[in-house]
Amino acid sequence: MHPNDPKLRSFIDVDPSSDFPIQNLPYGVFFTPEQPDLRVGVAIGDFVLDLAALEAAGLIRFDNASGVFARPSLNAFMALGPAVWGRTRARISELLRHDHPELRDNIELRRRALVPRNFADMHMPIAVQGFTDFYSSKEHATNVGIMFRGKDNALMPNWLSIPIGYNGRASTVVVSGTPIRRPRGQLKPPTADVPVFGPCKRLDFELEMGVVIGQASAMGEMLTEQQAEEMIFGFTLLNDWSARDIQAWEYVPLGPFQAKAFGTSISPWIVTREALEPFRVHGPAQEPAPLPYLQQRGANNYDLHLEVDLLGAGTSQPVRISTTNSKLMYWSSVQQLVHQASNGCAIAVGDLLGSGTISGPEKHQRGSLLEISWNGSEPLEMPDGSKRSFLEDGDSLVMRGWCEGEGYRVGFGEVEGTIAPAR
Amino acid sequence: MHPNDPKLRSFIDVDPSSDFPIQNLPYGVFFTPEQPDLRVGVAIGDFVLDLAALEAAGLIRFDNASGVFARPSLNAFMALGPAVWGRTRARISELLRHDHPELRDNIELRRRALVPRNFADMHMPIAVQGFTDFYSSKEHATNVGIMFRGKDNALMPNWLSIPIGYNGRASTVVVSGTPIRRPRGQLKPPTADVPVFGPCKRLDFELEMGVVIGQASAMGEMLTEQQAEEMIFGFTLLNDWSARDIQAWEYVPLGPFQAKAFGTSISPWIVTREALEPFRVHGPAQEPAPLPYLQQRGANNYDLHLEVDLLGAGTSQPVRISTTNSKLMYWSSVQQLVHQASNGCAIAVGDLLGSGTISGPEKHQRGSLLEISWNGSEPLEMPDGSKRSFLEDGDSLVMRGWCEGEGYRVGFGEVEGTIAPAR
Repeated sequence: MHPNDPKLRSFIDVDPSSDFPIQNLPYGVFFTPEQPDLRVGVAIGDFVLDLAALEAAGLIRFDNASGVFARPSLNAFMALGPAVWGRTRARISELLRHDHPELRDNIELRRRALVPRNFADMHMPIAVQGFTDFYSSKEHATNVGIMFRGKDNALMPNWLSIPIGYNGRASTVVVSGTPIRRPRGQLKPPTADVPVFGPCKRLDFELEMGVVIGQASAMGEMLTEQQAEEMIFGFTLLNDWSARDIQAWEYVPLGPFQAKAFGTSISPWIVTREALEPFRVHGPAQEPAPLPYLQQRGANNYDLHLEVDLLGAGTSQPVRISTTNSKLMYWSSVQQLVHQASNGCAIAVGDLLGSGTISGPEKHQRGSLLEISWNGSEPLEMPDGSKRSFLEDGDSLVMRGWCEGEGYRVGFGEVEGTIAPAR
Repeated sequence: MHPNDPKLRSFIDVDPSSDFPIQNLPYGVFFTPEQPDLRVGVAIGDFVLDLAALEAAGLIRFDNASGVFARPSLNAFMALGPAVWGRTRARISELLRHDHPELRDNIELRRRALVPRNFADMHMPIAVQGFTDFYSSKEHATNVGIMFRGKDNALMPNWLSIPIGYNGRASTVVVSGTPIRRPRGQLKPPTADVPVFGPCKRLDFELEMGVVIGQASAMGEMLTEQQAEEMIFGFTLLNDWSARDIQAWEYVPLGPFQAKAFGTSISPWIVTREALEPFRVHGPAQEPAPLPYLQQRGANNYDLHLEVDLLGAGTSQPVRISTTNSKLMYWSSVQQLVHQASNGCAIAVGDLLGSGTISGPEKHQRGSLLEISWNGSEPLEMPDGSKRSFLEDGDSLVMRGWCEGEGYRVGFGEVEGTIAPAR
């Protein structure tokens, strides 16, 4: 059976509401208090399956590599390429099947290789090479445009032609659970004569998907739709923390810099492109038609539910502040990658592409506080009576995402970040 | 004697016009046809001194590291920190002195460790982690502003407060001599209704210095002027190749992306901060005074001559198209680095900071063809009768830079790039 087959069952009990059934098998990097070496695992139900232990036991083998799972990142495994990704996932699926005895009946190996997820500390899954952040939601771009330039000039003239993006900062991409310190920066309200340097007052999140690149392209090469797709190893949830007041003052003419570079959070589990295959859908109609190099024949979007919870500082009841879907992305990840390589830019194993904020046409589908509070004019009412236009110290933000199968879901887990006060 | 002492002499004859006297000792990574392993060397006159060979012979030792010169980049050596940088340079200087016998009188080792520079192929000296490009020349920013927004709005309101910069693309930073392929991209002249995808028609260079970061800072930390300075390992020449027509259409609102990401060239030799110490000067007066976190007490600019030659395709006589000096930079490299860390952005060993185009107040000091040809309205006259507003296929651009000492110069060699036709 194909590893995506809905009828597959594991010898490990998996709740139907779990993000991690046998049809998913997302990759992450973890350690345990008893064994602090970083290593690669896949999530299955409430467990992490230690792939380094399986390789050491001879249950997973590669033709031209060894020890790729006993590493602090997935980069070495990803570099082996799509054929190996597929064979490895099929083998892991086989080893976890209810009717396959190799691992199921090896009690000693099960004890070593199946770590309860509660006991596993999750580490950054990849060594991020380049980090690029795109701007793929028409509704998000329009909302921001209306707020800052008015309804008539909302969408920039280039937006419908170019999957707009910018290079972000790779050194501050962190894994879920890492506290995010409120940045300091230059702030200048439009009414002030001179800027001041101080803690950001308009700290925001952005709900995005992260695309993890598993294959490289050479400098000077362009990519076809198919080549680009085959370079995508998988996806994460991504929170592009944003300092709106720093951005407003700094971004002309070279774009956001410090407003985005203080922290970007990703979920620890990389859901493979293959696991998302059953959930492919066409994106919104693109009108005007993209230039030929950007035209796509495939269904490159995913029907992937996304939601955001905000837990106010010192409270215990989270508020659902956004519910949207990644299928709303106007520019697909494949188009973004094709565009990024179209000038001959070399793509690297371990590159991370942020989708851009995924908002939708409905109010509840807005993917940032800037949009949710409409630039502070419609603050959120919190359960403790306080209000939120932007994030306060101690606030915690959680994003979740999953695709709904028949009787199972292929999920991402979550990406969480709590705001620490500025130093 | 201090390694910068003007009276120092080497047992290797060095012409007074050489960029590489014993007072310089810049680091690079090289290989030779007979010994293709990449390794670290320093330039001395017409030779490369193979530091891996010296370490293997026991002439250079580290307390807590070994083999750092038998590596494909300087990153491992840089990570050892400023005290080791200083001791190592002093030791290399000692080994090269005319009155020190250890290397001078070891004929067999000299034969192995001193490689004629003609026989050495230079490789990228560092594994670039983050690449950030700044915008530090007031004259360049003003020139560009006048061309695109008119004289009255030439300088953006934030420019005098912020060392403006953006994150660039690390994967396409290449060493001198690497051909630069003309990029394709979306082009839309103001008069056209829709963009087309095709080869860039306004291909340009930008004359910059590159700052190589040798020490890391943690996420969430700010840097003082002194801390920032001590993290700087050295400097290179940097050509920030730019596609002006791609940039004009794509850069709103997130800044330049594809226009800058197809190639950035650096010179192969990293001149250490210590070697440039005798040439420190104060930069231009900063008015209004920078915010306190950006104020500097030190003389953080360098009196460093810069020149650019253009060799037209199919011709043999280069034209000197720019002569300027890095001391004209309004924002110093130290201020740029302090600013970059001011929001808590983690700085990494191997980060590369581009200074931004270094233009000056005089016409001959303009550091890009955009300025030299005044956006095409004043094309260059070439020796073969042709004209240049921007770069043609086959054109070759060479930048050189040096500090003038008494009877010697501390130089950078050159960074060369030739334009290959678009694919």
